Amino acid sequence: MKPDVPIGFQASGISAGIKKSSQKDLGLIYSTVPATVAGVFTKNRVQAAPVQLCKNRICSSKCQAIIVNSGNANCCTGDQGMKDAELMSGTTAKRLGIPSDLVFVASTGVIGEPMPVKSIEAAVPELVKRLSPQGIEDLAQAIMTTDTIPKVISKTGEADRRPYVITGVAKGSGMIAPDMATMLCFICTDVQTDPVWLQDTLSQSVNDSLNRIIIDGDMSTNDTVLLMANGLSGVTIDTAEKKASFRKYLDALLCEMAKVLVKDGEGATKLVEIVVEDAPTDEAAMRIAETVAGSSLVKTAIFGEDANWGRIMAAVGRAQVPIDPDRIDIYFDDVHMVKDGMGCGKAAEAAATKVLRKPEFLIRIKLDQGSGRTSVITCDLSVDYVKINADYRS
Amino acid sequence: MKPDVPIGFQASGISAGIKKSSQKDLGLIYSTVPATVAGVFTKNRVQAAPVQLCKNRICSSKCQAIIVNSGNANCCTGDQGMKDAELMSGTTAKRLGIPSDLVFVASTGVIGEPMPVKSIEAAVPELVKRLSPQGIEDLAQAIMTTDTIPKVISKTGEADRRPYVITGVAKGSGMIAPDMATMLCFICTDVQTDPVWLQDTLSQSVNDSLNRIIIDGDMSTNDTVLLMANGLSGVTIDTAEKKASFRKYLDALLCEMAKVLVKDGEGATKLVEIVVEDAPTDEAAMRIAETVAGSSLVKTAIFGEDANWGRIMAAVGRAQVPIDPDRIDIYFDDVHMVKDGMGCGKAAEAAATKVLRKPEFLIRIKLDQGSGRTSVITCDLSVDYVKINADYRS
Repeated sequence: MKPDVPIGFQASGISAGIKKSSQKDLGLIYSTVPATVAGVFTKNRVQAAPVQLCKNRICSSKCQAIIVNSGNANCCTGDQGMKDAELMSGTTAKRLGIPSDLVFVASTGVIGEPMPVKSIEAAVPELVKRLSPQGIEDLAQAIMTTDTIPKVISKTGEADRRPYVITGVAKGSGMIAPDMATMLCFICTDVQTDPVWLQDTLSQSVNDSLNRIIIDGDMSTNDTVLLMANGLSGVTIDTAEKKASFRKYLDALLCEMAKVLVKDGEGATKLVEIVVEDAPTDEAAMRIAETVAGSSLVKTAIFGEDANWGRIMAAVGRAQVPIDPDRIDIYFDDVHMVKDGMGCGKAAEAAATKVLRKPEFLIRIKLDQGSGRTSVITCDLSVDYVKINADYRS
Repeated sequence: MKPDVPIGFQASGISAGIKKSSQKDLGLIYSTVPATVAGVFTKNRVQAAPVQLCKNRICSSKCQAIIVNSGNANCCTGDQGMKDAELMSGTTAKRLGIPSDLVFVASTGVIGEPMPVKSIEAAVPELVKRLSPQGIEDLAQAIMTTDTIPKVISKTGEADRRPYVITGVAKGSGMIAPDMATMLCFICTDVQTDPVWLQDTLSQSVNDSLNRIIIDGDMSTNDTVLLMANGLSGVTIDTAEKKASFRKYLDALLCEMAKVLVKDGEGATKLVEIVVEDAPTDEAAMRIAETVAGSSLVKTAIFGEDANWGRIMAAVGRAQVPIDPDRIDIYFDDVHMVKDGMGCGKAAEAAATKVLRKPEFLIRIKLDQGSGRTSVITCDLSVDYVKINADYRS
């Protein structure tokens, strides 16, 4: 057994015929005992049936299993969609021999098509049979849509002289914008903790990581982050010190996951951190960072490795924040590109172009208009992004 | 002389060596007598020097000439930029023998590079020499950047048993979003009118036309719409009836221009009108229309001729308008695609796919949640859009 799977968690992933290909499309996470659960969900007003089911069930703060499928979002599917989500939960619960309100559901894929529930029902016995601590990789594969790599990250902490593990599995790739959960992400840990603190910690940690990435600015109807804590390591997170330590590991995991998601963004060739400093407020900094990261013209310039800082200035100017353009400085990594709203000349541009050739770099925008600050992670807009999304359903 | 040029207006367009190619890049519009002028400018907080110059001069409501260049935006160019804009105006005024505060300036092109004013100064005599009523086509060519066709539209009205003409020239193509002027557009007419009414009319007319188009959601730093009215037709627009008639022609011209701009949008292959009906308010309808028109996922699906209505639902849901997804209907032209938030099945989808193959079509979103309504015109997001903008400066 690998050391980095939390005690008592098992997972599996198989092909149930939901996707047109024969790729894995149905996954299961199971804890041998009921776990404390926390969740963050999409803020889209159009919400898929499984999101509604999870939001109803999370009030109890208890969860023992999550069944997840890719290939179909079970969204805009009306009453039948909710029945189908309940059937997925019920069938799994029955096979596992646990109450159905302990089985959560998540779906991702095409919106508006009926769920192939017969196929799912037929596949559940096999899915349960394959559960194992090593099954996390299969689960990661089963939730992929346009992702090109499965995404699993583990962190090991220590408290009360015992180790504990936090493992996260996620899918992302497209329909990714800040200020929301932006993806499917399941986190398992073997610590014990109070559910209110766990929810608060997850919300804050997501806010500092998964909520700061932007691929295309579109917001999914199915975004779900669930964190299960089953206590089987024997570690209880109850003191301020232990809480801070747990938070540090969770933050590290989610920040790493955020980067992995952007790197595997649809068609992405560059990972760019956009830092906005000295803004009137943190909120103003965020509005500017989002506008720059969401600008098609900035993103295509990055794809073209063109240090076209004028497009960054234009995006800053339209962010509906009161700024003085003549006080703006812009850096590409350490290269000072814009000073007091004007370009620093040909030599700076040549140096910046070198930075743009790197797969990862930083764009820093200093406003000299306060102490507000934020950062977001984004990628470029490539020819492949358009090709992937023009052909998605065909 | 063509019948559709307003009396007393002359124009010209030549190559002054501002663009790297030998294409036309400097243009002039001239009225033989001072004209009443109205203007609408970008709402971007980063504004080019020529925009600032025009905004300063428009208070006098008088203008006799406009000098325009492409290839350089004269933006983020500091004090020197303003001096350069003033020099362009002054040199032109001197050559024309008129006061320099009657010569307005507009620029479009790359942001942040110094203006090649020497080349412009040297070219002004030739530019003035070539002025003629037929020169409007040359002017239209001189202001093109990534536009593929020059854009000139004329309308002929009648009042007091005399004809009058309104002619518009524009450039657009990229950095186009609603709620702003979104381009360079120069309108000449030979009526006489009160300047306050003219400004009001232009603002309203732009609001109903040029402000309702969205190509890529980016907002330019140089957007300028100027309307000159020189009165040489002998027609005075002074009664309610004549004002309504003039407004009708101006609206028709600007709506036609808006469509021409979107059709020639960077890489655009489809012209799509997005109508939002039965929204809580007109403003809510606009927010939804803008979100749908600005969604990369909706735009790539249109490029791919994929009737992926789920992406439209997802965009509606993230527009930050309180809507009930279960009451939404969506039509592609006359094809009823979504009813009460759910798909209308395979036959509807096949019919919708036929609509998507057309070069122009309508997406109608009915919310059943009030009487708010709006429409915007947009285009798809194509592989060519990315290629054009990745390579723009190279």
